Amino acid sequence: MLKVPEHQVAGRQAIDGKLGPLIDNSGHFYKPLQDDDERGTRELTFYHSFSSNTRIPHHIRRFFPVFHGTQLLKASDRSGLRPHLVLQDITSDHLNPSILDIKIGSRTWYLEASNDYIQNCFHRDKTTTTVSLGFRICGLQIYNESGFWKPGRKLVRNFTADDVRSVLRKFVSSNVGPEPDCCFAGSVYGGCDGILERLLELKTWFEDQTMYHFRSCSVLLLFDKESFLRGKTPFAEVKLIDFAHVVDGNGVIDHNFLGGLCSFIKFVSQVLADSKGSTMEDKI
Amino acid sequence: MLKVPEHQVAGRQAIDGKLGPLIDNSGHFYKPLQDDDERGTRELTFYHSFSSNTRIPHHIRRFFPVFHGTQLLKASDRSGLRPHLVLQDITSDHLNPSILDIKIGSRTWYLEASNDYIQNCFHRDKTTTTVSLGFRICGLQIYNESGFWKPGRKLVRNFTADDVRSVLRKFVSSNVGPEPDCCFAGSVYGGCDGILERLLELKTWFEDQTMYHFRSCSVLLLFDKESFLRGKTPFAEVKLIDFAHVVDGNGVIDHNFLGGLCSFIKFVSQVLADSKGSTMEDKI
Repeated sequence: MLKVPEHQVAGRQAIDGKLGPLIDNSGHFYKPLQDDDERGTRELTFYHSFSSNTRIPHHIRRFFPVFHGTQLLKASDRSGLRPHLVLQDITSDHLNPSILDIKIGSRTWYLEASNDYIQNCFHRDKTTTTVSLGFRICGLQIYNESGFWKPGRKLVRNFTADDVRSVLRKFVSSNVGPEPDCCFAGSVYGGCDGILERLLELKTWFEDQTMYHFRSCSVLLLFDKESFLRGKTPFAEVKLIDFAHVVDGNGVIDHNFLGGLCSFIKFVSQVLADSKGSTMEDKI
Repeated sequence: MLKVPEHQVAGRQAIDGKLGPLIDNSGHFYKPLQDDDERGTRELTFYHSFSSNTRIPHHIRRFFPVFHGTQLLKASDRSGLRPHLVLQDITSDHLNPSILDIKIGSRTWYLEASNDYIQNCFHRDKTTTTVSLGFRICGLQIYNESGFWKPGRKLVRNFTADDVRSVLRKFVSSNVGPEPDCCFAGSVYGGCDGILERLLELKTWFEDQTMYHFRSCSVLLLFDKESFLRGKTPFAEVKLIDFAHVVDGNGVIDHNFLGGLCSFIKFVSQVLADSKGSTMEDKI
């Protein structure tokens, strides 16, 4: 039985008769291929290329959803059968996951795109944190005792640098009020299995790989606060998603993604450093 | 006695009665402050801030020309007295230096600039290698036995990725023909005092510093082929120049410069790796 994903925080959603992704109970995520432009074809081409590419190190493959090919399915907009990408549902192992969707790069357009597309992106990039920070938060949900804090798209789009800092603090806090306690920062961002270490792994690969340029691609951070509260092993994940605008790297590193990733890493590091500082002060 | 710099490869030049920098015989470089826009003021503000900033590590300060304040001098366009920045002439210690001037970053405009300025930069960035490679070569001169190879501005502006690779090979070759021998690659780009090591040092700083954003700033590579040929110690340098568009970092790393720098580092690494490969093959 297919259903609308419960934990989707950005992108097109299969609600109100619109076209969007679906999930099943076996951990699959079905993403409809767009037929009105090249996006669908480009994303499918990427998954085919990536899954058969022997130059992708094993530890890097883990950052990508598993690809299970395509399948004809009844589209969510009731327009009939349509090919869907069959991907791993990366939220299926999580109970009430807190999620951040961060579009990486200080430019979302690319030279191969149409003029209209470039102008739209150019305007959006200037009026969000994309140009200033090298990334922007596209969507989020943060779990707390009373449910999810999931600000609306308009609010998210208007985030400033300070809002981004605040969200990164709230993500690893037991509270989402004006003074987040950052009590999970050490275990979620820090440590050898933490998000910061994963992001640094990704950075090292991007300093070298010249095969793909990941335009308009997101880094998804997932973390399961409830497991922590129940004393279970930390289970924080970093995944790349959305490859509808991936283009050939042509032997050049993806400096746009890499620069943005470094900026994001600095933001995460600062939250981690500040949280250590405050813990030290608390002890004194 | 002030004169026009012999080794200027990019920027405004003090020729044909135009306004441009001058040098003396004591190793000083006099850069006129523009009075038609904010560039001069911004560059002066940067030098004042940077030279008194105690958070700049000693090994990073070496990448910047020494600043000796300002001085009123007769301008090269004969418009009378005008304030000039008094800087270190970084070419003065070199005999026939080969020079590359590389404007770093995949975007030369910045949010604080005027709309006209942004549109001009946007167009230039798209039509040069700035967007595609994250940097562009702005000017160069490469010394060889018959003198300097110094392609004109129009030619340089039309450089493709392959032209850039070719220039980086010619820079460390004894010849500038279609098959450069890269015979100086190991000593100029490689080694613990080589250009690659210096660029990596710079990269490490840019991964951390959030004080300045270096828009439209150049990395200058200098290297003295003749000294090599005479059996002298290698003397390759990396310097940052042109700070007329430096803006406050506001606590965010300069992801635009960093991304471009990483891309440039990859290009240099590839020339070095290829030259090692060919040396190995030659030996077999």
